[in-house]
Amino acid sequence: MRFTSTTSHDGVTEHLFTLGEIPGVLWTPDDAAGPRPLILMGHGGGQHKQAPGIVAHARRFAAEGGFAVVAADAPHHGERPKGEDFGRVLAGLRAGMAAGGDNGGPLAAMHEFLSERSVPEWRAVLDAVQELDFVGAGPVGYWGLSMGCGLGVPFVAAEPRVRAAVLGLLGVHGLAEAAARVTVPVRFLLQWDDDLVPREQGLALFDALATAGKTLHANRGKHGEVPAFETDSSLRFLTRHLG
Amino acid sequence: MRFTSTTSHDGVTEHLFTLGEIPGVLWTPDDAAGPRPLILMGHGGGQHKQAPGIVAHARRFAAEGGFAVVAADAPHHGERPKGEDFGRVLAGLRAGMAAGGDNGGPLAAMHEFLSERSVPEWRAVLDAVQELDFVGAGPVGYWGLSMGCGLGVPFVAAEPRVRAAVLGLLGVHGLAEAAARVTVPVRFLLQWDDDLVPREQGLALFDALATAGKTLHANRGKHGEVPAFETDSSLRFLTRHLG
Repeated sequence: MRFTSTTSHDGVTEHLFTLGEIPGVLWTPDDAAGPRPLILMGHGGGQHKQAPGIVAHARRFAAEGGFAVVAADAPHHGERPKGEDFGRVLAGLRAGMAAGGDNGGPLAAMHEFLSERSVPEWRAVLDAVQELDFVGAGPVGYWGLSMGCGLGVPFVAAEPRVRAAVLGLLGVHGLAEAAARVTVPVRFLLQWDDDLVPREQGLALFDALATAGKTLHANRGKHGEVPAFETDSSLRFLTRHLG
Repeated sequence: MRFTSTTSHDGVTEHLFTLGEIPGVLWTPDDAAGPRPLILMGHGGGQHKQAPGIVAHARRFAAEGGFAVVAADAPHHGERPKGEDFGRVLAGLRAGMAAGGDNGGPLAAMHEFLSERSVPEWRAVLDAVQELDFVGAGPVGYWGLSMGCGLGVPFVAAEPRVRAAVLGLLGVHGLAEAAARVTVPVRFLLQWDDDLVPREQGLALFDALATAGKTLHANRGKHGEVPAFETDSSLRFLTRHLG
């Protein structure tokens, strides 16, 4: 793990790093010392580790919750090279979206393609970050919506260090089997008027999660219109389970 | 409005009153002076104004939020006489529940029967309570689940003084038209494994609410198993909209 830049702003220190071929960013409260709970944040499709929604959440989680927060560019996203194989899967998804109708199948194919790499990558990032003396091997949470949920469900299902997760904005296509292995508390966000994910598909993914401690928060609005107060709510949820 | 008893416990004063034939209870912070936001609480079917769930919520809303909180026995509930006409409607509901299947129709008939009286009664209680100098004509919220939702939806739809409402644990039967006139912010609670209200019926009632500012919170568990953390969440919701 190699740190390439460290900057501080408004009480939060942002550490850019690379781990092998994975570019990542770690946020901590300024002058963080000793172990603290950690949140892994998975960005959305076509986005990257410093997408505005990621940065805004991460800075609040660090500043207000005292968390360490880490995000990484998903395979074929952000600063990472986009392979030809990814191009073919993406073209399939775009063709499906252009044709209209339920794009759950092509979306699931995309996430399945990516998660074969992203799940072991998250484990490697988690291993490396937990080695840092200002993070340590404390409780771990995961936050990821849309593609961050599609790559997050198989990761949370596979990684026993994750103790709580904020997921959502995605349907059940391709995820039912992994969801049935998620047993940690989950906060699931659903947009009632989601223009990308059919409502029934989102409800079905919530339903498929095995955990008893799951809560669905549904708000009006389209895919990208999650209300700001859900950030406060996610912070409280993660603090309750990891704090 | 006639006060019949006033007692104080743990920082909250409980005032029992009667307004005409309506027995009610008003909770305020001890030594409350001057106007404050008001929450009306509608109890569940077969319950009454001092059912444990009502009292527990009301005391927290008063102690932690500084609210005035009022509950009243619904028609044919609590200390009030049960009329023969009510007996017939109740027998119809019980027969439907014993027969199994969707009891949404008989439940809606019961709530429609009761709300013809409860809606004007809530208005009379609101008029009277707002005359008190330690309550005043400030912002008003409504909290009611199950039957408290069935009687609450037509009340909130009809009463412009209500600015926010916590509703839920009920389906759309008989309420679609009133729900389409609810335009204030709503927090809607749904139990994912509700043994009295079919999930689809509850989702349909949430869907029918006209307001843009509505949020659904769905938790696992049966009808009576709303998690305790939803009380904190309701208090924050009501404080945000009325505080």
